[in-house]
Amino acid sequence: MQTHNLIDLGDISKADLDEIIRLAAMIKANPSIFTDACHGKIMATLFYEPSTRTQMSFQTAMLRLGGQIIGFDNPSNASVAKGESLKDTIRVVSGYADVIVMRNPVEGSALAASMYSEVPLINAGDGGHLHPTQTLTDLVTLSAEKGSLENMTIGLCGDMKNGRTVHSLIKTLSKYKGNKFILISTPELQLPPYMLDVLRESGCPYSFSDSLEKSIAELDVLYMTRIQQERFRTAEEYEAQKGIYVLDKAKMALAKPDLIVLHPLPRVDEITVEVDDDPRAKYFAQAEYGMYARMALIITMLTGKADQDVPNGKVLDGRCCQNPRCVTRSEGYVPHLFYEKGGRSVCSFCDSLLEE
Amino acid sequence: MQTHNLIDLGDISKADLDEIIRLAAMIKANPSIFTDACHGKIMATLFYEPSTRTQMSFQTAMLRLGGQIIGFDNPSNASVAKGESLKDTIRVVSGYADVIVMRNPVEGSALAASMYSEVPLINAGDGGHLHPTQTLTDLVTLSAEKGSLENMTIGLCGDMKNGRTVHSLIKTLSKYKGNKFILISTPELQLPPYMLDVLRESGCPYSFSDSLEKSIAELDVLYMTRIQQERFRTAEEYEAQKGIYVLDKAKMALAKPDLIVLHPLPRVDEITVEVDDDPRAKYFAQAEYGMYARMALIITMLTGKADQDVPNGKVLDGRCCQNPRCVTRSEGYVPHLFYEKGGRSVCSFCDSLLEE
Amino acid sequence: MQTHNLIDLGDISKADLDEIIRLAAMIKANPSIFTDACHGKIMATLFYEPSTRTQMSFQTAMLRLGGQIIGFDNPSNASVAKGESLKDTIRVVSGYADVIVMRNPVEGSALAASMYSEVPLINAGDGGHLHPTQTLTDLVTLSAEKGSLENMTIGLCGDMKNGRTVHSLIKTLSKYKGNKFILISTPELQLPPYMLDVLRESGCPYSFSDSLEKSIAELDVLYMTRIQQERFRTAEEYEAQKGIYVLDKAKMALAKPDLIVLHPLPRVDEITVEVDDDPRAKYFAQAEYGMYARMALIITMLTGKADQDVPNGKVLDGRCCQNPRCVTRSEGYVPHLFYEKGGRSVCSFCDSLLEE
Repeated sequence: MQTHNLIDLGDISKADLDEIIRLAAMIKANPSIFTDACHGKIMATLFYEPSTRTQMSFQTAMLRLGGQIIGFDNPSNASVAKGESLKDTIRVVSGYADVIVMRNPVEGSALAASMYSEVPLINAGDGGHLHPTQTLTDLVTLSAEKGSLENMTIGLCGDMKNGRTVHSLIKTLSKYKGNKFILISTPELQLPPYMLDVLRESGCPYSFSDSLEKSIAELDVLYMTRIQQERFRTAEEYEAQKGIYVLDKAKMALAKPDLIVLHPLPRVDEITVEVDDDPRAKYFAQAEYGMYARMALIITMLTGKADQDVPNGKVLDGRCCQNPRCVTRSEGYVPHLFYEKGGRSVCSFCDSLLEE
Repeated sequence: MQTHNLIDLGDISKADLDEIIRLAAMIKANPSIFTDACHGKIMATLFYEPSTRTQMSFQTAMLRLGGQIIGFDNPSNASVAKGESLKDTIRVVSGYADVIVMRNPVEGSALAASMYSEVPLINAGDGGHLHPTQTLTDLVTLSAEKGSLENMTIGLCGDMKNGRTVHSLIKTLSKYKGNKFILISTPELQLPPYMLDVLRESGCPYSFSDSLEKSIAELDVLYMTRIQQERFRTAEEYEAQKGIYVLDKAKMALAKPDLIVLHPLPRVDEITVEVDDDPRAKYFAQAEYGMYARMALIITMLTGKADQDVPNGKVLDGRCCQNPRCVTRSEGYVPHLFYEKGGRSVCSFCDSLLEE
Repeated sequence: MQTHNLIDLGDISKADLDEIIRLAAMIKANPSIFTDACHGKIMATLFYEPSTRTQMSFQTAMLRLGGQIIGFDNPSNASVAKGESLKDTIRVVSGYADVIVMRNPVEGSALAASMYSEVPLINAGDGGHLHPTQTLTDLVTLSAEKGSLENMTIGLCGDMKNGRTVHSLIKTLSKYKGNKFILISTPELQLPPYMLDVLRESGCPYSFSDSLEKSIAELDVLYMTRIQQERFRTAEEYEAQKGIYVLDKAKMALAKPDLIVLHPLPRVDEITVEVDDDPRAKYFAQAEYGMYARMALIITMLTGKADQDVPNGKVLDGRCCQNPRCVTRSEGYVPHLFYEKGGRSVCSFCDSLLEE
């Protein structure tokens, strides 16, 4: 691998990504070979906001490789997080651990942390910004269950607007040939313009749908997401629409026999419990693939070359990122770097557009 | 073992129970033989309510067998527990761990969880309902300290009414021959009628006492429990009575030289600190026996056949359990099953009687 | 080692201390030799108040020796800590673990706990009283970075009055020959009289300074500490003075090329971020030395003879320690012991003077 950190899945070449996916499959097939792969190594899981599922997945991955774990999961009793800069915490933990997994609500914090870490750092979610190991999990699942990542008709259903997971998955799958996307959503929750640009540039065919019922028969993959009530203007509107995007036994009856259904979990009620027993429901298997994905990632990171990230971008004199949730706002020593994109300046950490 | 879960100690045959007790003694005598018994295995401790002592006992047991642990202990930051059904959490964790230990304040939740778990599940307490590993601890202690589980005069002192631990211990010991029970309590806190039925059916002699001082000389075993102030109608009544059930040096002087004193801990002030140095005080040793009991249980579970529990009972059309703390009330997908007992219908999950 | 507990660094002979420091250096140089030194051993980290950094350092140390860890870090969900005496918790955990590390806000609690522990106990901080492994960390760092613990001019800067770390370091370094101390502080925050007695008795030269700028050129070691605003009478006074004790690039330019800068961390703003890249800044390395110091300590404790501490002192009839934060006030069964010092009686647990 060229990079030894995983901040953004987009930083990894398709070849490296394919290698991680292959390694995950190999581990799933022969777990005993990897039982001591990380013997004597320590992973720190620094969770500045709790996410028990993600943390348990990473911890299990490390333990199944024979490694050990330290860390915290509770911002309120993590004294390490109080009155101390992110840099200092990362520098200290770098001296304890061989690899750091960090989840932090501040956008861009993972890239900032990687600048100061002396060991590989994995982004387990930096606010609403990036969550690359969820996408890696999705890819490992798709590859194992469908045999490849190509030539699929992929339905994405629910909230296309706000889901970082959905955006990252579309970005990655649009690089594989023959994929076609059906975006099943209400107009209010459709994919934002910059994501439509991504699709257009990729050349992948895509279409819109407002009905899961009408579209399900075409799909090879159905990726369900949560629809959150607060996204709607009125409670009535939410109530009226949410039923459209509930996957139930009746809708499953319309689907192909080799459809697979994914969901990043936790689900609320967008998939009824009766669907769980359908062999095409793969969302619990997906969580288990996530463990193998993370095992493959940890091995890849620990065998890579470790040196600090140098973020892409340059200082624009006097300009600061305007996103109040950006790490450059809360950690004063982080340089204010921007890169160019389509003639505009974009923050190197949180990827927000700089307003003129 | 016929079952691969431990939900209720009553589900385990006497032969299987004796085997676990023997294994615990063997581990205590030769711990080094078992150092790697669970190498490569992972236990998840899912504590929906904190119980540091029980969790530490299970964790130590697994670690001393060479296994590893994941899990959570704090309901407030367990995102896995938020907005997600018990079923989904159990299905996901089943994909990570080789054995699940769950403590949950909802009655019947352990049996419900075992229906969806793909790995063995151990009940570490489901509300006020069951806590089988405490009773297993008591049995391992008694067997080791007294040489067998038969022919003992057992005094149980304190709260006979509310203690699930005491009820479970009486149920189990009444199956062994030659045991005699002395129930030392105030009338308000005496054993409930259904427990007296259990004793009558077993044929074990039993008697009531309201004085620890008068009864202690007869005992081979004294099992002390906490008396909780809130059980009394007035503070005066509590104050007047609590002294009766304090075990102190003076009362110990009246007891047999081979008496053993047990207590499930934590104690408040029902045993004075001066008793701790008496060699007959075995409550700290009991906590250590609990670790060996859990080591034996884990080995037994991991070597058993794993398939999901099918609860005993059937749906009665339209009827739901009326216990507001029952798992069938909070987890909508759990079937409303009832079994027959003495012509009455009883909830298969929380064992509450169904009112007509 | 004569003692198998570490409650107060002053209890360890200089010879034993030197041996631990040598062992730490050996581990740092050859970590792989020690990978399985504690295989099969369990450390309990009982943190009655959170201190993520200290806990992670101990946990990493144990894991890097091949041992395992149990424990708690959150007083609010540590049921073991609720309604249970310290003695009972320690007795129970003694049955689970091979070594106990305890942090507890109650002064003298570590010594009290060691009276009841059946395994070695390490004090990881007992209120404002003692924190011996921080001082051990400082000594291991100094010894490695300066080659010995002798013949140094040591500047201590910031809060000399309240810092238990600073007092303990001075006490220990004053036993090594050729050391000279420069105490850099405001008059309000200077070293208290009993510490000046220690220095006088040791025969080490010492001087006072109110300016870091003026004194820095003389130093071989600069030990920075936090200055806390609440120590000052007014906000203005704090604002006016705090700049004096900020170490920055300009002040570093005045210092010797072989100065080393230490800080117990976390820092707030008493060292500017720009100093971090100066090769003389050793505070992050110091945190890593702390891990090796704890590894050496754990090995030493586990290979020592384990029997309970008998505190030095005797009961003075009817007299109780007057310090409201003393363990003898909250744990009623702890004996009220006092030792003589300069004709005065001093509490054996919290070292407070008994008022006549």
